[in-house]
Amino acid sequence: MLFMKEHVTKQARRAKEASWKLACVPGEIRNAALLAMADALEARQDEILEVNAKEVESAKTKGTRPNMIDRLTLTPKRIVDMAEGIRQVAKLPDPLDKIDFEVTRPNGLKIRRVRVPLGVVGMIYEARPNVTADAIALCIKSGNACLLRGGSEAVRTNKKLVDIFKEAVTAKGIPSTAIEFIGILDRDVVVVMCRLRRLVDVIIPRGGAGLISRVIEHSNVPVIETGTGICHTFVDKSADFDMAIKICMNAKTQRPSVCNAMETLLIHRDIAADFLPKISQAMIDAKVELRGDEACREILPDMKLATEDDWATEYNDLILSVKIVDDVDAAIAHINKYGSQHSDAIITRDADAAKKFDLMVDSAAIYVNTSTRFTDGFEFGFGAEIGISTQKLHARGPMGLEALTTMKYLVDGDGQIRG
Amino acid sequence: MLFMKEHVTKQARRAKEASWKLACVPGEIRNAALLAMADALEARQDEILEVNAKEVESAKTKGTRPNMIDRLTLTPKRIVDMAEGIRQVAKLPDPLDKIDFEVTRPNGLKIRRVRVPLGVVGMIYEARPNVTADAIALCIKSGNACLLRGGSEAVRTNKKLVDIFKEAVTAKGIPSTAIEFIGILDRDVVVVMCRLRRLVDVIIPRGGAGLISRVIEHSNVPVIETGTGICHTFVDKSADFDMAIKICMNAKTQRPSVCNAMETLLIHRDIAADFLPKISQAMIDAKVELRGDEACREILPDMKLATEDDWATEYNDLILSVKIVDDVDAAIAHINKYGSQHSDAIITRDADAAKKFDLMVDSAAIYVNTSTRFTDGFEFGFGAEIGISTQKLHARGPMGLEALTTMKYLVDGDGQIRG
Repeated sequence: MLFMKEHVTKQARRAKEASWKLACVPGEIRNAALLAMADALEARQDEILEVNAKEVESAKTKGTRPNMIDRLTLTPKRIVDMAEGIRQVAKLPDPLDKIDFEVTRPNGLKIRRVRVPLGVVGMIYEARPNVTADAIALCIKSGNACLLRGGSEAVRTNKKLVDIFKEAVTAKGIPSTAIEFIGILDRDVVVVMCRLRRLVDVIIPRGGAGLISRVIEHSNVPVIETGTGICHTFVDKSADFDMAIKICMNAKTQRPSVCNAMETLLIHRDIAADFLPKISQAMIDAKVELRGDEACREILPDMKLATEDDWATEYNDLILSVKIVDDVDAAIAHINKYGSQHSDAIITRDADAAKKFDLMVDSAAIYVNTSTRFTDGFEFGFGAEIGISTQKLHARGPMGLEALTTMKYLVDGDGQIRG
Repeated sequence: MLFMKEHVTKQARRAKEASWKLACVPGEIRNAALLAMADALEARQDEILEVNAKEVESAKTKGTRPNMIDRLTLTPKRIVDMAEGIRQVAKLPDPLDKIDFEVTRPNGLKIRRVRVPLGVVGMIYEARPNVTADAIALCIKSGNACLLRGGSEAVRTNKKLVDIFKEAVTAKGIPSTAIEFIGILDRDVVVVMCRLRRLVDVIIPRGGAGLISRVIEHSNVPVIETGTGICHTFVDKSADFDMAIKICMNAKTQRPSVCNAMETLLIHRDIAADFLPKISQAMIDAKVELRGDEACREILPDMKLATEDDWATEYNDLILSVKIVDDVDAAIAHINKYGSQHSDAIITRDADAAKKFDLMVDSAAIYVNTSTRFTDGFEFGFGAEIGISTQKLHARGPMGLEALTTMKYLVDGDGQIRG
């Protein structure tokens, strides 16, 4: 533990010192480094595939789950995709050096507010090696150094990728220590990373709810939370049933594995007896398992009973919990109690109910008469996103490169003093 | 402990529920509530003064320090100032309901990004009762409920003020539970508050470095850090000596007790033998105690030796640590190692040195040829500020009401689904 802590701290300190140099590197050089990374990936794919093949082998002998094996496995196609992803990031507008405020004060002081990198971004993620490429590309693009911790199953592949990237960026004049990958396979590395206040400027966990809550529990470094989605759709008494069914089916079944899919359906009591049988038939036809409260079972006695846990669960699967509520206030209270502040929808013809839902539901994105599935950088017209922030400070909703930057005031004088 | 935890949690839950209602209250009603608070303060000052006088008495008998007694003591004048302060907040522009982004997508979805309250603001502060008025006013203005924890010395006065404010806002239709004051005198209340994730949306500690680090240590709620200022001035070899002396004297002595005052002076080695005697004479004439490194003492043997702690100390007093450095890089390294990321200055005629200092010093405000004392909402032309943020996420530098808000996406459709 002690050695590990010392080692990780050293890496963080190296990254921190590199971050000061990186803050001086202009956008065209950061982009050139990204293109060099992409080229190196393709040029050296045989080395990468060889290391990865060995790692996949030992994972299989360890009896790793097939879906994990699949996420771990690299192919020439996947390497080309990784390189393409990096080139896409290079094409994005530079998030730095923007002057978003400028003034000359009566005393002659010139004040500018400029966008600058956060410094060192700590990224904690699970097995997929492409996340390594992705995370490094986003950090270099935004002028940040990074301290990376990937899943243990992919550690050899990730190390290989990082070595290649370090070489590529160094050739363009970016210090290799701007990319620090933690290769130590000790579960406590996560905790140590989260305690490196002053060396690490932000921690971004990319993984399941377990990882995220572990990070939040231990971190004295600010955390950017993304990705947990317990999304609701409330069908109000004035809803157009056909529209409601179309939207609910889309929100639940179009891609159930993602964070903006619906997990809980709330139905106004006045229409439940009429609407519930219709929607449940459609869901059952789509192979969706329904779990309802007692009120649902009075209408459809065969429905499985939902437990308290169901209301707080992100299924990411063809499962839907269903609850009958008295009115829009009850729907709002349920969402604010059990939701993950991600995306929630109301289907209604009542403008007052919609307004109330908009104002009182405490989530990043509120939908009226449409599907929660639209919470997405591209769907919003923002382009590529780092993730969907479910927190309120710094970034909320679809998060672009700007979330990896902060601001700084530059004040130029010629001897002014304060009276 | 258990009872206390339960009690504080109940208060937080009440505030959270009030925050949903408060999110629907228009600006004119929030402002009317503020004016009602100010009027009530003046109308009921006798009650307040009576409670406060008793509290001051018992503080004196407890042997409380005179400066603490002074901060605790209310007078008719101080109550009028408090009321005036609240009226000033009412006059500020409404930070809410702004639409800062709006688009209609090709599929017809209307997307708006609006400013909304954070929800429940947890404020932890020390004895001064006027902070209670100030904190409540800022929260009501920005549509936030608040959970307050003040210093134990002022608990009876604070309770009295809170009762009066609760009555005043209720009369305007704002739930009294939007203002929750924790009256329990248990040091662990701070820790409990910091662990109320999901009930409290942000914690703002207003007090000494000890309080702030305690909050950061324990909090799983996002924290906004303000106020710690270990500010540096680096006098480069090309500096104009007269300008440098004028600026250093202003930064150190114009108001030594505040966070943007200079605590450490860094001098380029090439000019130290010439500049150090001049500045130290001026400082000594101004009753400033100097603490230098060994290199300083080679030039001025009588100077007290600075310890490692001195570099990391915010004196808020007429004390200055002085260090001689080899060049601008060494100055930057020292500031980034020991500073508090608040405000730092370089005095130079060398544009390259200034540019490097601007880019590489990792602080909220960077000054070239002027005094760090200018880091202030009014001096920047922003008006009243909540504090100076020394963190990088969400808010940095002088912080206005917007720091107490977040954003939310409102998406209106007529049946759109994702394909």
